[in-house]
Amino acid sequence: MNDAFIHSEDDFLALINRYFPNEHKELSIARGDDCAVFACPPSLCVTTDLFVEDVHFRTSYFAPADIGHKALAVNVSDLAAMGAVPLGFSLALVAPRGVPVSFWEPFLQGMAHLAATHDLVLTGGDLSDGDKITVGITVWGAPGQRVLARGRTRIGDVLFVIGRVGMARVGLGVLEAGQDLDAFPACIRQHVHPEPLVEQGRLLAALPGVRGAMDISDGLEQDVPRLLAPGQGATMFMDPSVIHPEVTMYCARHHLNQARFCLRGGEDYALLGAVEPEYFEIVRERIPEAWKLGIVTANGFSLDGTGIRLQGFDHFSHEQP
Amino acid sequence: MNDAFIHSEDDFLALINRYFPNEHKELSIARGDDCAVFACPPSLCVTTDLFVEDVHFRTSYFAPADIGHKALAVNVSDLAAMGAVPLGFSLALVAPRGVPVSFWEPFLQGMAHLAATHDLVLTGGDLSDGDKITVGITVWGAPGQRVLARGRTRIGDVLFVIGRVGMARVGLGVLEAGQDLDAFPACIRQHVHPEPLVEQGRLLAALPGVRGAMDISDGLEQDVPRLLAPGQGATMFMDPSVIHPEVTMYCARHHLNQARFCLRGGEDYALLGAVEPEYFEIVRERIPEAWKLGIVTANGFSLDGTGIRLQGFDHFSHEQP
Repeated sequence: MNDAFIHSEDDFLALINRYFPNEHKELSIARGDDCAVFACPPSLCVTTDLFVEDVHFRTSYFAPADIGHKALAVNVSDLAAMGAVPLGFSLALVAPRGVPVSFWEPFLQGMAHLAATHDLVLTGGDLSDGDKITVGITVWGAPGQRVLARGRTRIGDVLFVIGRVGMARVGLGVLEAGQDLDAFPACIRQHVHPEPLVEQGRLLAALPGVRGAMDISDGLEQDVPRLLAPGQGATMFMDPSVIHPEVTMYCARHHLNQARFCLRGGEDYALLGAVEPEYFEIVRERIPEAWKLGIVTANGFSLDGTGIRLQGFDHFSHEQP
Repeated sequence: MNDAFIHSEDDFLALINRYFPNEHKELSIARGDDCAVFACPPSLCVTTDLFVEDVHFRTSYFAPADIGHKALAVNVSDLAAMGAVPLGFSLALVAPRGVPVSFWEPFLQGMAHLAATHDLVLTGGDLSDGDKITVGITVWGAPGQRVLARGRTRIGDVLFVIGRVGMARVGLGVLEAGQDLDAFPACIRQHVHPEPLVEQGRLLAALPGVRGAMDISDGLEQDVPRLLAPGQGATMFMDPSVIHPEVTMYCARHHLNQARFCLRGGEDYALLGAVEPEYFEIVRERIPEAWKLGIVTANGFSLDGTGIRLQGFDHFSHEQP
């Protein structure tokens, strides 16, 4: 079976059924009909992300289980960033004919494991032939105590980050170069297997004074301006103690400015948030991974005391990955 | 602008904003945040479909507006088949760098026109570079008076079809051959621009005795067994009067059995339903496009008095389109 190929949609659906339970207490019509039907809360958070071969990942250095995991993780991270609790998802999968069952089994297992961790039910989707593995996922969830949106910051708010930055960028650099793999295990893991910070997002939505949050998918340089209300700026500091030793080592070896490097690193799926200054200590107490990035200002950006122009990553304007 | 290419995600999002309104009474957080947040009914119908270049459509004979329309229409048709009212959708779009703005403008316009027709709001999505135009849409809606599911038929139920069958298959055949295009305008239109039967599905969900329904996307040969409860069969008749004259002409020219041809034709997005026999007349009265296909039996299939084995279309086991 393992070296075989998928011969029919029914074969593939049977494979999916092996890894994903097709019942859930909220689900009145499950996979296999025109639509799924499920009970839902009074309001719903919905997000969609693509994960495309040779754009977002390469099969040469991504294990199939990590591809399945990350395709779902980047979606769940968007829910986490709103403070929402994930409920269900649908899967649009371009599965090229030449990809064997031995790929799809761990792929589905990796995705199913993350789904089970968060009690997420796969309600359905669609399969197609095509040239490149393309995973389109739409995930929905219930808002937490508050919805952590963008664009609601005020001057003087504390900007903070939950999690690390720069690690996934190191992981990508090392994997693309194909050298020194043994020296950067944590960074490689962060690139191929990011964990969405669902519990931290949920906690954040319940804490006082929190103005909003988002996940850092494109790097702080691009994402900080997106969190801020229009026209605002930020004074930022990249405390060396929050930078992972592997990132420090990578930047030293390549003669890179570590703080700038971390500002540009995307795909860590850390959370970026803003909180009224008098409540920042509560955030830090309740969520130990939180660290202070800086302060919202009237305009302009600075990093470690030097003015900077912010620009970020864009899937259209840069070569990828 | 028209001969230009998309240079950044922001360019593309600006284009999307030109065609799709970003506010709706049910939408508390719209496009541009990590998630959209919207008010929803106590239960929701959700479905996902892919529409992939050179698998589901070719740019050589599909106008960009029709690609945009059909990518959404095939999804809305799944909601129609459940008797649900569409509310919103998300768009996962692989937009290869080499496709110009002059393609995307009518593409988005075609999609936006169908969305506006049904008051469907685009809540968000994702964009990626890639090799082939790939449209993954997830659409959700509110169940109608009843949910029209599959697998609930009983022996003696009347099977009926709302709409035509076989036309899209003729359209595909003519377009692929590239000949006689002028002789089959209705069939070509049916292939490139199917209209989802939302109003008919909604009506059906409110009529007495209706046991279930689905949309005919892969052809009756594959879809009839899917509508039936496990093990059941059907006695079917293909009344020549329900067959479009262009289909009759096409089958005569190619020496094809017209009834068998229509049984195999997918992608018309007609609705297939089952109703208790005493209520079929009400269906026919209320929905003039409905016609009787046959009767649910204990087992086995027949067409026009001859026993047949049913088999259908599968995106993995056949060459496509």
